[in-house]
Amino acid sequence: MGTRPVFMPSQFAIRDISLAPEGERKIEWVSLHAHTLNSLRRSHLEDGSLRGRRVAMAIHLEAKTAYLAWLLHEAGAEVAVAGSLRVYASHGANQAELDRQLLQTLDLEPDLVIDDGCELVSRLHQRRPQLLPKVRGASEETTSGILRLRAMQTEGVLKLPVIAANQALCKHLFDNRYGTGQSTLTALMSATNLLIAGKSIVVVGYGWCGRGLALYARGLGARVTVVEVDPIKALEALTDGYTVASLSEAASMGDIFITATGSVHVIRREHLELMKNGAILLNAGNFANEIDVPALAQLAVEQREARRHITEYVQRDGRRLYLLVQGALANIAASDGHPVEIMDMSFSVQALAVHFLANYARELTPGLHPLPEEIDREIASTRLRLLGVQLEEMTGEQKAYLQSWRSND
Amino acid sequence: MGTRPVFMPSQFAIRDISLAPEGERKIEWVSLHAHTLNSLRRSHLEDGSLRGRRVAMAIHLEAKTAYLAWLLHEAGAEVAVAGSLRVYASHGANQAELDRQLLQTLDLEPDLVIDDGCELVSRLHQRRPQLLPKVRGASEETTSGILRLRAMQTEGVLKLPVIAANQALCKHLFDNRYGTGQSTLTALMSATNLLIAGKSIVVVGYGWCGRGLALYARGLGARVTVVEVDPIKALEALTDGYTVASLSEAASMGDIFITATGSVHVIRREHLELMKNGAILLNAGNFANEIDVPALAQLAVEQREARRHITEYVQRDGRRLYLLVQGALANIAASDGHPVEIMDMSFSVQALAVHFLANYARELTPGLHPLPEEIDREIASTRLRLLGVQLEEMTGEQKAYLQSWRSND
Amino acid sequence: MGTRPVFMPSQFAIRDISLAPEGERKIEWVSLHAHTLNSLRRSHLEDGSLRGRRVAMAIHLEAKTAYLAWLLHEAGAEVAVAGSLRVYASHGANQAELDRQLLQTLDLEPDLVIDDGCELVSRLHQRRPQLLPKVRGASEETTSGILRLRAMQTEGVLKLPVIAANQALCKHLFDNRYGTGQSTLTALMSATNLLIAGKSIVVVGYGWCGRGLALYARGLGARVTVVEVDPIKALEALTDGYTVASLSEAASMGDIFITATGSVHVIRREHLELMKNGAILLNAGNFANEIDVPALAQLAVEQREARRHITEYVQRDGRRLYLLVQGALANIAASDGHPVEIMDMSFSVQALAVHFLANYARELTPGLHPLPEEIDREIASTRLRLLGVQLEEMTGEQKAYLQSWRSND
Amino acid sequence: MGTRPVFMPSQFAIRDISLAPEGERKIEWVSLHAHTLNSLRRSHLEDGSLRGRRVAMAIHLEAKTAYLAWLLHEAGAEVAVAGSLRVYASHGANQAELDRQLLQTLDLEPDLVIDDGCELVSRLHQRRPQLLPKVRGASEETTSGILRLRAMQTEGVLKLPVIAANQALCKHLFDNRYGTGQSTLTALMSATNLLIAGKSIVVVGYGWCGRGLALYARGLGARVTVVEVDPIKALEALTDGYTVASLSEAASMGDIFITATGSVHVIRREHLELMKNGAILLNAGNFANEIDVPALAQLAVEQREARRHITEYVQRDGRRLYLLVQGALANIAASDGHPVEIMDMSFSVQALAVHFLANYARELTPGLHPLPEEIDREIASTRLRLLGVQLEEMTGEQKAYLQSWRSND
Repeated sequence: MGTRPVFMPSQFAIRDISLAPEGERKIEWVSLHAHTLNSLRRSHLEDGSLRGRRVAMAIHLEAKTAYLAWLLHEAGAEVAVAGSLRVYASHGANQAELDRQLLQTLDLEPDLVIDDGCELVSRLHQRRPQLLPKVRGASEETTSGILRLRAMQTEGVLKLPVIAANQALCKHLFDNRYGTGQSTLTALMSATNLLIAGKSIVVVGYGWCGRGLALYARGLGARVTVVEVDPIKALEALTDGYTVASLSEAASMGDIFITATGSVHVIRREHLELMKNGAILLNAGNFANEIDVPALAQLAVEQREARRHITEYVQRDGRRLYLLVQGALANIAASDGHPVEIMDMSFSVQALAVHFLANYARELTPGLHPLPEEIDREIASTRLRLLGVQLEEMTGEQKAYLQSWRSND
Repeated sequence: MGTRPVFMPSQFAIRDISLAPEGERKIEWVSLHAHTLNSLRRSHLEDGSLRGRRVAMAIHLEAKTAYLAWLLHEAGAEVAVAGSLRVYASHGANQAELDRQLLQTLDLEPDLVIDDGCELVSRLHQRRPQLLPKVRGASEETTSGILRLRAMQTEGVLKLPVIAANQALCKHLFDNRYGTGQSTLTALMSATNLLIAGKSIVVVGYGWCGRGLALYARGLGARVTVVEVDPIKALEALTDGYTVASLSEAASMGDIFITATGSVHVIRREHLELMKNGAILLNAGNFANEIDVPALAQLAVEQREARRHITEYVQRDGRRLYLLVQGALANIAASDGHPVEIMDMSFSVQALAVHFLANYARELTPGLHPLPEEIDREIASTRLRLLGVQLEEMTGEQKAYLQSWRSND
Repeated sequence: MGTRPVFMPSQFAIRDISLAPEGERKIEWVSLHAHTLNSLRRSHLEDGSLRGRRVAMAIHLEAKTAYLAWLLHEAGAEVAVAGSLRVYASHGANQAELDRQLLQTLDLEPDLVIDDGCELVSRLHQRRPQLLPKVRGASEETTSGILRLRAMQTEGVLKLPVIAANQALCKHLFDNRYGTGQSTLTALMSATNLLIAGKSIVVVGYGWCGRGLALYARGLGARVTVVEVDPIKALEALTDGYTVASLSEAASMGDIFITATGSVHVIRREHLELMKNGAILLNAGNFANEIDVPALAQLAVEQREARRHITEYVQRDGRRLYLLVQGALANIAASDGHPVEIMDMSFSVQALAVHFLANYARELTPGLHPLPEEIDREIASTRLRLLGVQLEEMTGEQKAYLQSWRSND
Repeated sequence: MGTRPVFMPSQFAIRDISLAPEGERKIEWVSLHAHTLNSLRRSHLEDGSLRGRRVAMAIHLEAKTAYLAWLLHEAGAEVAVAGSLRVYASHGANQAELDRQLLQTLDLEPDLVIDDGCELVSRLHQRRPQLLPKVRGASEETTSGILRLRAMQTEGVLKLPVIAANQALCKHLFDNRYGTGQSTLTALMSATNLLIAGKSIVVVGYGWCGRGLALYARGLGARVTVVEVDPIKALEALTDGYTVASLSEAASMGDIFITATGSVHVIRREHLELMKNGAILLNAGNFANEIDVPALAQLAVEQREARRHITEYVQRDGRRLYLLVQGALANIAASDGHPVEIMDMSFSVQALAVHFLANYARELTPGLHPLPEEIDREIASTRLRLLGVQLEEMTGEQKAYLQSWRSND
């Protein structure tokens, strides 16, 4: 970093940010390991496309996201971020405060939006429709955001081109799977100081997040049960070596339950009533509504902090259930979030999506669009090159062969 | 099976088949474990749609494929099969003989084609174009066949609707990955009687087949190196815990090399020259051209059968290289092919694809078509139900949630 | 091998051996991969110690054991082997015939005994006590043999020094674990052509054999349940990520049951009655009595060969249970036994144990003795060197440190 | 816990302990998960044997060890502990201060010693020999302590009976392996926020600690290289699927290096000079001398805290090397130490060892003694029972069989 100036993502956003030295060091640590972003910064971001753009970001703000904001700022953009470091530190931003921040971010009158869970795009359409004509496009980071955007598209109300950044291979294959897996288990192990090996862990949802959770839970010695609604995913989970069951079956077997569905109220009263004394619940999905926390609170005769990040709910029959960080995204709320290298890839996707929108949004129709495949591949190639990993190259004979079909070819 | 009649797939095909009692027993064994096919037979295949249809099949004929042919026959179809049990037994059908059989199958003047590697469809277009108008459609089983069909489509010469059976999730997620993985390693272990644990195994290609090979090779204790041309797949392989390298780098490190690319001449003279004394080569791809066997033969000063299914090539410098079944598909040529349950799913896809074509082919345009998603899901649901595995069901609240997008929803 | 003479283990043993060319090739294949034995042959076996010695061997005779016999013969010993290739081929040697052969081997009046399951040593003591004074010592290959020898020692009847070859680290850590694991699963997969992934496999016994079975069953995608009598092993199995249960609990859950206990009748009528339709049973222990086959036969209303190596037992209630190779050691009886490299180590132990006895037996008291640790280590070092694997070397500082204890050292 | 009194391990030790509410809660959390200890407390510890005993403990003091001290106190013992919570919190106790505390603990004039690394026993012999006659015996927790005690025994200076608690199966099979594995990787992931998957991790030492580290590092997606001095362990590591190399070979390949040898200066200047830019070093061995930190400091041109717990050493050539917690035991110094359930077992061993010494020490000769096997098994049985896991029971027939050896038995 050497002469890295003081972090200052934008005149606008700076109001909410006061970085402790620990935070400064964390951002510098990110910069030392974000090889792909650093390389793409030189090759793409600083080509002038972002100069003067106004970018609104909804994001879990911590060291890695701060680094993305700073890179965009350095590339000439004005950046406003909702979800400030301050808010993150308190973990207590209530809905009203978060809503206020998100709307405040929109006051920037952004050209470009980096969204997380469709928070900004939905508010733009519902609460600030007058700003829509100025927005060139948005990029969406999460599975749950994509679900909401699809619902908007189905209803015919989506007025913007949105890059489905989450669908980029360099994003969901890595971030949702390996990132969620490692960081959620780290949060679980740090918060509880309990042994994973020999535990029965129930993973609810076998999308990309669920796969990562199941993979590393097993890698750490747990017996894993997967709960799924989709028959093909369920069959995959079974063939991957996991037990597959409904949550009603699994509720009484599990020691630890992790939700990762993108849906709502997947662990409900009927399941909580079946759980073993000492069962631990946590959420790896984007929103804090996968576990029905109000039902849990209502069932409890007593409630207290059992350990940092862990609330104990004593049930009428004496069973104690433990909930991490009130059902919020555990890897963010109880730990440092995704590993740096994962965000290096995810934010390379976001950064190039925004860069692409800055140049080509006018050519896109409203609706969801994939990140162009060649951009996705370039991110992977860049990262491999920086890691010193060699790809095989196709020969001319092979290229011709793959385009032929005749049996005597 | 109870009163199962003597196996007799069709008046036509019967000419080439003389089943030994061992073969009979193998087919009955298949029938005992093909739960999904048996169930779909009752619910779909025997509804009359296939009555009187003429089905031409190109297929590695053994017990499981014989069972599929028999089911179609029992559903009222006339079935002709290329690649007879006799031929399979000898493993020696030369190109000319195979070609003769494939064309002979077309003499049935089929309505419907079950193809494997685009062998029948390519011959229909090149050598029997006059039969094309009578063919309602085809279904293609393999990745390499899909590649050829895409090449046909790109050239604008594909005149039939073809169901990309290989792209069905119930096919490639299971057959290509777990099926190829288990059966190829079984073939390798049976043929060589060598230890996998502690070996360096190089898997060339990290598509679905390569993933399965790498997964189980590691599961049996090997150190796995993956060779890929695609940067995203290479990055996945790396993050899955494998070494990633070019084949030039890997050639001198590997004890065992397995190809699974769908491409041609991926292991060439330049790699053979670098390999260690004792290196073993085998192919898990559909066609016997992934290893450049002529180059291997040319480099050798001596060549002999070292063990059943294994040819030893002594190099000028004294190194001995070992090739399984002359570079043919090892799991078929040196063992019993895919596990029964895998083919239960793959042939459920094929059977329902043919059933779908029998009813709806006239509504399809020429070109590649996916198997309808609901058929794919029904196969998985059927299998799970027969295994007694419970899916989770979505609540009404969840369905509504997944269709909503407003922040106050 | 170059000028390797025709295989001919000894004048004596030759009477029972007629090697087909396939057998010849298999032995040569072994010789190409038995690097450690080949090296120790030059450094130790041919130093004259074995010249003129008479060695009686009880052994599952196939290519690898034939190679050991031949090496001892080449080192100057006269070798008699019970369990001939012919017998092995038929898999049908009944008890009386096997007994006759074992006694016949003792007619050699051996100096040295290589035993397998205490078959020769027990007969020496019970039936040929007059020969005991001439025998210098024996070496025992198996866990079950060690159990019998301990029983002899406890009773005070063991009159010979016996090297517990099975307890050598280079033997049981590799042979029992990785060897049994790979070869038993290969036998299972070859014999059944069924998928391992997604199956529930019950491993009875979590000794070294059971560990290997569980490890590779999971590595191939099975859910594994371990049944144990020892609490510490059970706790290890649990922490290794397996389900632990009693066999009564596991009987109704398993798809496949594998015994590896060294005990008797571990799967009994009470368990057979609970098993699912289609359950498969096989044995990985040394003796064919771990599954109560007579009970299984008695429960059945019908019995037939379902596939090569597989007997189907139809139960009164219609359930079909499948038994591999009549409960005999499955990896030997249904496949080629342990991988070559495993036997390279196990037979290095046996060969050096016999070599040690030839030189030092007179200094040993009757009873079980460990293989000297330095011999064990030399085998491992030799193998690593031949594989080109580098050990770390201790520095002088480290050696001193490990001998110090004072806090200011 | 309900009416649990304020934690107060002893009149003596209390001087150094001022527990924050967070500490109180942590101890209560431990008490909720220490099922085995809680059960053994009722069945053994409180039988009066410990009443009035004076126990000196050397221990990394945190919530779990505090709970052990409290249990002994509740059983009537007077307990003095070296290594207070205060000291632990600062992570900065220098050698002199630690030494002072250890000696102060001995001022209690203990009957019984619970030792960690032979810190108290060595001081007793070197610095307080006059107290030796009063000490009944000691129990040693660690591999490195056992090494020192063996050195004392070899020199003939060990004057006490010492229970080798570390050698109890319920200790080292679980604590050293799974405990060290999980907690060290958690510390690594928390401290660095870096991705494990795809990294090259070098584990130095393949004893029980090294095995756990390698197992979970691979379980989280790393490629693992093992460095060993022992040929049999090296061969096991290889067969377990790891790369095996000398540290000179591995130094330039690794992204992360973890030492777990019990030896000294295993990573030295010659290795540091070969490491890649960004390499991370940490220690999982008991003493902070496995990585040669002075050499690292001497090579550096610049040194600073890069992130909490991480020191950056900039090399002359610009490479940056990162050291966790100054080479101290990373899982203790950068995280909460072993998981609770692991210490539940280890401290069950320690508590029953002390209980055994209280009753039987007078019958033991000076020197190292194993924990009696039946105590070891009882701990495992107790834990399994509390987990609801069923052991298989031997039948009478089986017991007889295992004591028989005659071939017609």
